[in-house]
Amino acid sequence: MPNKYNNKVSELGLIDYLGRILTKNKLSVLKGIGDDAAVVKISKDKYLLNTCDMLIEDRHFKRRDNLYDIGYKAIACSVSDIAAMGGEPSFALVSLGIPQRIKFRDIKLLYKGLRKGTDRFCVNIIGGDTNSCDKLIIDISMIGFADSKNLVLRDQAKIGDYIFVTGSLGGSIYKRHFKFLPRVKESKFLTDRFKLHSMIDISDGLVLDLWRILKASRVGAVIFENLIPMHKDAKNLKEALYMGEDFELLFTVSQKDGKILLENIRQNKISFPLSFIGKIINKRCQMQLIDKNRKTIELKPKGFLHF
Amino acid sequence: MPNKYNNKVSELGLIDYLGRILTKNKLSVLKGIGDDAAVVKISKDKYLLNTCDMLIEDRHFKRRDNLYDIGYKAIACSVSDIAAMGGEPSFALVSLGIPQRIKFRDIKLLYKGLRKGTDRFCVNIIGGDTNSCDKLIIDISMIGFADSKNLVLRDQAKIGDYIFVTGSLGGSIYKRHFKFLPRVKESKFLTDRFKLHSMIDISDGLVLDLWRILKASRVGAVIFENLIPMHKDAKNLKEALYMGEDFELLFTVSQKDGKILLENIRQNKISFPLSFIGKIINKRCQMQLIDKNRKTIELKPKGFLHF
Repeated sequence: MPNKYNNKVSELGLIDYLGRILTKNKLSVLKGIGDDAAVVKISKDKYLLNTCDMLIEDRHFKRRDNLYDIGYKAIACSVSDIAAMGGEPSFALVSLGIPQRIKFRDIKLLYKGLRKGTDRFCVNIIGGDTNSCDKLIIDISMIGFADSKNLVLRDQAKIGDYIFVTGSLGGSIYKRHFKFLPRVKESKFLTDRFKLHSMIDISDGLVLDLWRILKASRVGAVIFENLIPMHKDAKNLKEALYMGEDFELLFTVSQKDGKILLENIRQNKISFPLSFIGKIINKRCQMQLIDKNRKTIELKPKGFLHF
Repeated sequence: MPNKYNNKVSELGLIDYLGRILTKNKLSVLKGIGDDAAVVKISKDKYLLNTCDMLIEDRHFKRRDNLYDIGYKAIACSVSDIAAMGGEPSFALVSLGIPQRIKFRDIKLLYKGLRKGTDRFCVNIIGGDTNSCDKLIIDISMIGFADSKNLVLRDQAKIGDYIFVTGSLGGSIYKRHFKFLPRVKESKFLTDRFKLHSMIDISDGLVLDLWRILKASRVGAVIFENLIPMHKDAKNLKEALYMGEDFELLFTVSQKDGKILLENIRQNKISFPLSFIGKIINKRCQMQLIDKNRKTIELKPKGFLHF
């Protein structure tokens, strides 16, 4: 979508545009552009998931950042995308653009970081491409698989659904964004036991990623300030709402399943942090925050955009 | 592999290094790093192929080049990799790094080029990632499939094999490297009818890509100057031997199949240009060129390296 001021490209507009022109031309593609990963049916009850994430120097990381951390994060981001679909990661391709200034020992460090990620999540690096480039660029393309009973898309949130989020939010970029653990086990635990209606991983902030679910599902949401799990690193509510790189799972379930989940949380039957934060409502793409004084605040879809 | 002078990284050395450290940890990966595409067994007689190709401004194309052409080429390069494994392409992810200076209409042009490639080869773009970057970067990750009877690797060339090449070689970068037709149909024709022992697509020049087959198969080769199909755009033999971007198929078959192929060529039964250029010999990784005066020249593995 052209930006009306200068005809430049915005990320959201571009993704919309791509979704329109690159239409699905094969029956087996269940989901193309517009989710955390593409979904291709490969057998009666098995789906192939495929996602890519490009990390660019000066955009996603600084030259001074540790290459081991960057390598780990590159894998972890893609793993998180696969987990957000209810899948498990399997294979990765690694495309690198490498500046001439980078020494072999630094590349080894980068690969050790990649390896830390692939070992932890049982991912096999099966290929790649290396080129020289002014900036360091790491593009990971990852293949995962999901059973049909576990697969969760973004576009099936229903009015009345309860909204949950794993972990706690905000302040990730001060410290932990290089060390985060993608919620693969949590995704498996949840999708094995509950029929999740929609799910996304929070990469660009709670509000923007919630809005992506709402937009895809054509619904609205109300969330409650006092229910939002703020991370201790978050300086204020705004950081928990809008700051990116949390990589927590945001999902919705039916009211019935939501109540069971809440009961499980109360009884300490869930081994990871999980919070109920609000409900899906019928106001299409609208987001309301009920603050601590019970005042309703309209939220706008903004957050961290990579473009 | 560290360059002994400055500890910087060479492409060949890096790929060797990756192949060593990123060991195969799952039985279903038939081929990891070190072929045109990774090969994963997904059923008794079906293989998934996965490859990625990164095109970088000022490295693989110039800023003044037409974005439509660049888009087409990005897809065609990956299609060629899949064809070189005896497979057919199916799905692609498109990762883009987009400079702020690029206008929306230019991105549309790029996508029209991508679309031309995906339409022609029945590839479905199922996802991607967009980021801003100083240089335009296009990374295509492509999934294809091959029946086990069609699958061809690099590492099974046998002593006595006949070496063939499709099309004609040299001078591609003057004109046709943006317009080339990956040899998908030709690959299917050949692999349906013959048991190819090894195959690669010539992206970095005949000599370097032949050497890759020899290295993987631990054999040598002798080729004949007067048999090498020079393209009319090639200024001299050197360009046919070393210049990259031909994207023709280079393959070996048993002597028996080779003779049948030669007979087919003589009888005009093959609808595309195909040339016998030499034989596989037992001198590991050595390449000999017999020139027009029947003099033997040792060839060194050089060509166009992207790093």
